Amino acid sequence: MLEAPISTHLHAVRSGSAPVIEFLTTSAWGTRRDAREICDFVMGNPHEMPLPGYVDAIRRASVPRDVDWFGYKMNETVPCEAAAQSLRDRLDIPYEAEDIFLAKGASTALALVLSAVLEPGEEVVFQTPPWFFYESIIAFTRGVPVRAPVDRETFDLDVEAIAAVITPKTRAVIVNSPNNPTGRIYPPQTLRRLAQMLTAASQEYGRAIYLISDEAYNRILFDGRRFPSPTAYYPYSFLIYSYAKALLTPGQRLGYLALAPSMPDRERVRSAVLTAQFSGFGMPDAVLQHALPELESLCIDLDQLQRRRDLLVNALRTQGYQVHAPEGAFYLLPRAPIADDRAFVEILAADDVFVLPGSVAELPGYFRMSLTASDTMVERSIPVFAAAMATATERGRPIGSATRR
Amino acid sequence: MLEAPISTHLHAVRSGSAPVIEFLTTSAWGTRRDAREICDFVMGNPHEMPLPGYVDAIRRASVPRDVDWFGYKMNETVPCEAAAQSLRDRLDIPYEAEDIFLAKGASTALALVLSAVLEPGEEVVFQTPPWFFYESIIAFTRGVPVRAPVDRETFDLDVEAIAAVITPKTRAVIVNSPNNPTGRIYPPQTLRRLAQMLTAASQEYGRAIYLISDEAYNRILFDGRRFPSPTAYYPYSFLIYSYAKALLTPGQRLGYLALAPSMPDRERVRSAVLTAQFSGFGMPDAVLQHALPELESLCIDLDQLQRRRDLLVNALRTQGYQVHAPEGAFYLLPRAPIADDRAFVEILAADDVFVLPGSVAELPGYFRMSLTASDTMVERSIPVFAAAMATATERGRPIGSATRR
Repeated sequence: MLEAPISTHLHAVRSGSAPVIEFLTTSAWGTRRDAREICDFVMGNPHEMPLPGYVDAIRRASVPRDVDWFGYKMNETVPCEAAAQSLRDRLDIPYEAEDIFLAKGASTALALVLSAVLEPGEEVVFQTPPWFFYESIIAFTRGVPVRAPVDRETFDLDVEAIAAVITPKTRAVIVNSPNNPTGRIYPPQTLRRLAQMLTAASQEYGRAIYLISDEAYNRILFDGRRFPSPTAYYPYSFLIYSYAKALLTPGQRLGYLALAPSMPDRERVRSAVLTAQFSGFGMPDAVLQHALPELESLCIDLDQLQRRRDLLVNALRTQGYQVHAPEGAFYLLPRAPIADDRAFVEILAADDVFVLPGSVAELPGYFRMSLTASDTMVERSIPVFAAAMATATERGRPIGSATRR
Repeated sequence: MLEAPISTHLHAVRSGSAPVIEFLTTSAWGTRRDAREICDFVMGNPHEMPLPGYVDAIRRASVPRDVDWFGYKMNETVPCEAAAQSLRDRLDIPYEAEDIFLAKGASTALALVLSAVLEPGEEVVFQTPPWFFYESIIAFTRGVPVRAPVDRETFDLDVEAIAAVITPKTRAVIVNSPNNPTGRIYPPQTLRRLAQMLTAASQEYGRAIYLISDEAYNRILFDGRRFPSPTAYYPYSFLIYSYAKALLTPGQRLGYLALAPSMPDRERVRSAVLTAQFSGFGMPDAVLQHALPELESLCIDLDQLQRRRDLLVNALRTQGYQVHAPEGAFYLLPRAPIADDRAFVEILAADDVFVLPGSVAELPGYFRMSLTASDTMVERSIPVFAAAMATATERGRPIGSATRR
């Protein structure tokens, strides 16, 4: 028998996401995740029943109103108009319906845009700590992943660090705001400096560098904050959105890629994205396209999420954890009280509290907790965090203190 | 302003599907397709209301039964078991649930498998006349598309023609049975010869050549035929399936890629496919995964489809058209009575009967008609076909005759 051959290219793709996949599939969480009694802070997954309005919208959109209801769908006019209108209303940027390209969630939208613009071997810069699959998706679309660290004190973009890794082969820079895992919303002044730097670098090398703005969490904002979209500041911008966060339905794949209205030469870019859509990524399901306008009006309870954030941040700080309050997105990012975050995560796991070790997201010494855990899980976990702090301190390598960020 | 750069690679991708996209977007059909009075035979799209059982299944699957109902989904056990069971029952091949990789329809499943196995520049053979997007998807996944013509008399696979284009760089051969557009089901004796040839070629070049069996229509069978899956005959086989045909819901993206149980080294291949799934293609929606076991029991009315086939074949033959009766799939493939199939299609379109010119599917001189048109459309179209035959004959270049295939 001959060996069944597989693509060598996949090794690079796989290595990019190996740490998180290994954790999700081989850690104790992998075997315990369905147990009712655990406290599960690992992923941005729902732990309470879905929004009733969501269920109603999906069920309504499942009732056919014409023969073509479940027929082939492209970027249909009604959902694209609704998405563009929402961007105009929320971001105050004149997005147009014909620049909306529907995608099966943010990850597909990212693969779509990279497929549309990259030549093999071109570089794509992303920030570290990163979302788990940036490196894999860049490698998958034949790009070269390049890291730029964010400021480790403020978690703001480090524009100089990005500038330092830009080369004549840089084709795109990915930013994610509100950020997973840091919770940071990049402020206008940083975005302006980023735009200036990208404009200067594009001019220097005689070719435009794209900004890809991953805004999956752009509705998940705390403390009454407004969201400044990076795409408002730089013409060669793509916006990526997913409905999975605001609706907390990550298993229902609906999102889009939007070309900034300021982008030059949009007709050519639209045609490239459409070609990539036709080549295997495909369109969101008919039901989700029909439901999209109604889904635009729904969002999980952000006040509840914020109360959960405040409760946990206060409890953890009182217990001696270093943790900052995120400005947006789903996650807390406490320092582990011992240097080995994986070892600390195991201490918690022994008491059925599951969190993500920072080292799987290139942030050793931290751990990530999703605020999508239920209130019950939050309450039950608090004494476990206290006990784990005590255990860690007894082990004699405490690095935690009551210092606030 | 600098030009907005796009991938040069997309030119090759786009050119593969340019003829059909151009027809769909710029022909009279593009502007008339929503008019109630037309007879629309262009695509395998629904023209009657969906199966009530389908709507019920989707609505039931939309009601959450646990907190994780709309949470992240992978290749979930229940739908994968149901799909494998169905393959075992229908094809009598011992497919296993862990070899089922869910995909958003057949086109995504094809992109997935090619992504998992191809090195850039490797060749993928497909049959002509082809499905419209084979060339684009092969090019998109960095393969080199290679054509092998089917037998023009019988529309059976031409194993010698495939053998003639196999080289040391051939990685895969795609076959599609029941075939779109020819309606041919490749018989066991042909599949055995194909398997022998592929085995010999793999041995000769010291590396396995995969068989990719696109079986989107494997439930759409006429005259009580059974379907012999090409994957029963050759170990290095992948099976691609879509629920869009049996349910006539092409806008609801649900299908899968299955590794043949005979495939050597399946553990490695599974891992490769999983990596490709994680890299942008993603999973079918949660609702469709929940509904899948119930959807397995549903199918459009094949007797009705067969009656429509018979009615049209008889009427067209009586009018002097050359047309064979398809063994499966959705399509009739009559000869155009004049050599220029596009000109003939325009004659029909002038009377609001829309069919697909064969030249967009590499079959000049023919036209394709989808049997998914409604009975009303079929009835209304018959006098138009008669009139078009008369018009074509008057123009003095008749090539039609009453000869049966």
